[in-house]
Amino acid sequence: MAQMNIGIAGLGVVGAKTAQLLLSPLHAQNGTDLSLRAVSARNKDADRGFSLDGIDWHDDARELAARDDIDIIVELIGGSDGIALELVSSALRAGKHVVTANKAMIAHHGFALAELAETQNVSLLFEAGVAGGIPALKLIREGLAANHLTRITGILNGTSNFILSEMTATGRPFADVLAEAQEKGFAEADPSFDIDGVDAAHKLAILAALGFGEKISFDAVQCKGIRAIDKADIAFAGEFDYTIKLLGIAERGGMRSVQPCLISNSHAIAHINGAMNAVCVEAEPVNIINCSGPGAGAGPTASAVLSDLIDIAHHRTAPVFGVSTDRLEDAPEISAAKQISKFYIRMLVSDRAGVLSDITAILKELDISVESMLQRGQPKADTVTLVMTTHQTSLEAIEKAQARLAKADFVTGNIMVLSIIDANELR
Amino acid sequence: MAQMNIGIAGLGVVGAKTAQLLLSPLHAQNGTDLSLRAVSARNKDADRGFSLDGIDWHDDARELAARDDIDIIVELIGGSDGIALELVSSALRAGKHVVTANKAMIAHHGFALAELAETQNVSLLFEAGVAGGIPALKLIREGLAANHLTRITGILNGTSNFILSEMTATGRPFADVLAEAQEKGFAEADPSFDIDGVDAAHKLAILAALGFGEKISFDAVQCKGIRAIDKADIAFAGEFDYTIKLLGIAERGGMRSVQPCLISNSHAIAHINGAMNAVCVEAEPVNIINCSGPGAGAGPTASAVLSDLIDIAHHRTAPVFGVSTDRLEDAPEISAAKQISKFYIRMLVSDRAGVLSDITAILKELDISVESMLQRGQPKADTVTLVMTTHQTSLEAIEKAQARLAKADFVTGNIMVLSIIDANELR
Repeated sequence: MAQMNIGIAGLGVVGAKTAQLLLSPLHAQNGTDLSLRAVSARNKDADRGFSLDGIDWHDDARELAARDDIDIIVELIGGSDGIALELVSSALRAGKHVVTANKAMIAHHGFALAELAETQNVSLLFEAGVAGGIPALKLIREGLAANHLTRITGILNGTSNFILSEMTATGRPFADVLAEAQEKGFAEADPSFDIDGVDAAHKLAILAALGFGEKISFDAVQCKGIRAIDKADIAFAGEFDYTIKLLGIAERGGMRSVQPCLISNSHAIAHINGAMNAVCVEAEPVNIINCSGPGAGAGPTASAVLSDLIDIAHHRTAPVFGVSTDRLEDAPEISAAKQISKFYIRMLVSDRAGVLSDITAILKELDISVESMLQRGQPKADTVTLVMTTHQTSLEAIEKAQARLAKADFVTGNIMVLSIIDANELR
Repeated sequence: MAQMNIGIAGLGVVGAKTAQLLLSPLHAQNGTDLSLRAVSARNKDADRGFSLDGIDWHDDARELAARDDIDIIVELIGGSDGIALELVSSALRAGKHVVTANKAMIAHHGFALAELAETQNVSLLFEAGVAGGIPALKLIREGLAANHLTRITGILNGTSNFILSEMTATGRPFADVLAEAQEKGFAEADPSFDIDGVDAAHKLAILAALGFGEKISFDAVQCKGIRAIDKADIAFAGEFDYTIKLLGIAERGGMRSVQPCLISNSHAIAHINGAMNAVCVEAEPVNIINCSGPGAGAGPTASAVLSDLIDIAHHRTAPVFGVSTDRLEDAPEISAAKQISKFYIRMLVSDRAGVLSDITAILKELDISVESMLQRGQPKADTVTLVMTTHQTSLEAIEKAQARLAKADFVTGNIMVLSIIDANELR
């Protein structure tokens, strides 16, 4: 097997771990001959716990793409555009294979980059970009290659899952748990990419494109984060035997969304806690496959980067998005009328006669059928909390109901609406 | 991409589904050109729900290996030896790729067949042989290629898992549930391969060989089935917050066993019910990956067979057991002294003074430390049921204790001993 020379751009925790594994006399190469030739990072003198002696250093990562002696560029800089995109584009144009963990770049520029890789007949792999250590992309692209995928459901952001799991386990409010997560380094100082669902949306866009054979479209993913989840929602969900998870859901020809959902405790995904990620694929003829594993971290992510490198060294190739780019279809646009789900509604209302009747009249007019209801008063308060779950209805109907209820004088606060995922739907 | 011509031997439910999918104008081929050329089965005239017009028929499957126009043999006859082995051996010798679901054949003859495939430079793939629709072998061989595996834990037999799940859910005894499973077609008329753990042991031998880079050894797998599991054991396990599962466990350099175990309910695998299978891989640097999915059935198994065919058509190759056969090591032999676990012990003892003291004296002499104990008497009986869980100890010590207790005059029935798997062990 011919030697493959590698250049790594970016030596953060993942880049450093990848370099270290490539430099150790190792099992990690699995019979291949991968050789780290050059690296680029911001700080040449940082102590990374291992020596880069004998490895060429570049201050400018873009220089790696110009080196004739490098076969594979590993891009671990990050950012959807800028240097990462310049490096990857020029590397592909120069006929080099590219391995990256950059989901933002793939979510925004994946189609153009896939066309470039296809033209140059090189590999563009990004297993490390989705679900950390879980080989979710290989699973879909190769393990389930004979299947017609109908739905992909995932817990795709470890930080959000950690926060929701902690809120569920301890009953503490969101802000508390976020602050602790930031202190412990589980959450960034600016956590918005994680907790607003953007990071998960990048990953869901990739999963949908690969799973359904579509031109990748980040814009097609509706995105709602977890900032508004109250500890009361988590407690009520538990009373109805559900757990609140930030779920990415992609349906063939249907919705692409990242949103906090109530998922039935009888579904395996409801039990994936902490920083773990999960991917659940529904498909014919396999029916259903669930995978879970660590969603981030140096080791799990380096495992994914290295598996891509080993695939390239073994000449195991596949089209970037499962089929050739000319066969990729446009992502569908789905109206709210066609997004059918069960819903959870929580609101604070005045504690006076006739309110329940007014609410149910509004729901009835919109053809929304209530499955269960729970009313809980507080001592010495003139408001009560009302929690309802509905039968299947459209997002359009729920949004109309929400707008009408918000205007009613008896509603005294925000109305929380969340989708419900039952186990019989997902199995 | 060149056309690959296929011959299928065996048209049972899996063979028929595979043929049907290959013949349909399909998504199933994923951009490849797979062509079903010939088939062989016992009954030419069986109604399979689709037409085999234009496909050559062979009464003797072995003739398929001699055809120059066939590139890939799909062996779905079954049985570790006999026609299946003859066909596969001669197909490999003739330079044909082989795809099979035959775990018994691979468990017994996998090393010799891998050598043959390697010499001939052809693929020998058996994804469908292990964990049904879960692409567990691809996961380990490629998805985790950079990892050093330390342990593999699996629910590898759907029939046993169905029976234990039903016993757990309903409190019914083993014989009742087995009879129902046989009636419904979930269990064979002779269910011994499934419920005595032999089928799971075949699969575990394959997982261990691939995961640890070893010469496959079915004999190295210790095997205990579920016939002796009493509904009382299931109930007691529940009281201690465990679930009883038939688990295959392989540790690097350590034990290979298929046995009913108590697994902590805080582990994901405890919640995999019915005919589902699960595979849990612990490895560095990825840490842990869990997968679950349907363990059998026409669709899931055909999904695995077809993914192997698509890999071959895409020229995605890898050594049969992950590394070349000359690098495979011998499977370790592990003494009972080195098999460390927590244990569950249930026994019926005379209800008289001093018994507890006698039992604990025996355990103390063998350095076995009791973690928890539960004694339950029955009205009007002169015996009580005693259930204990121990801290970590060796299988050797437990077997000695069991032998000494069995001889004691106050023990009035069989002593049930089961391993306990805690979540902090498996995460």
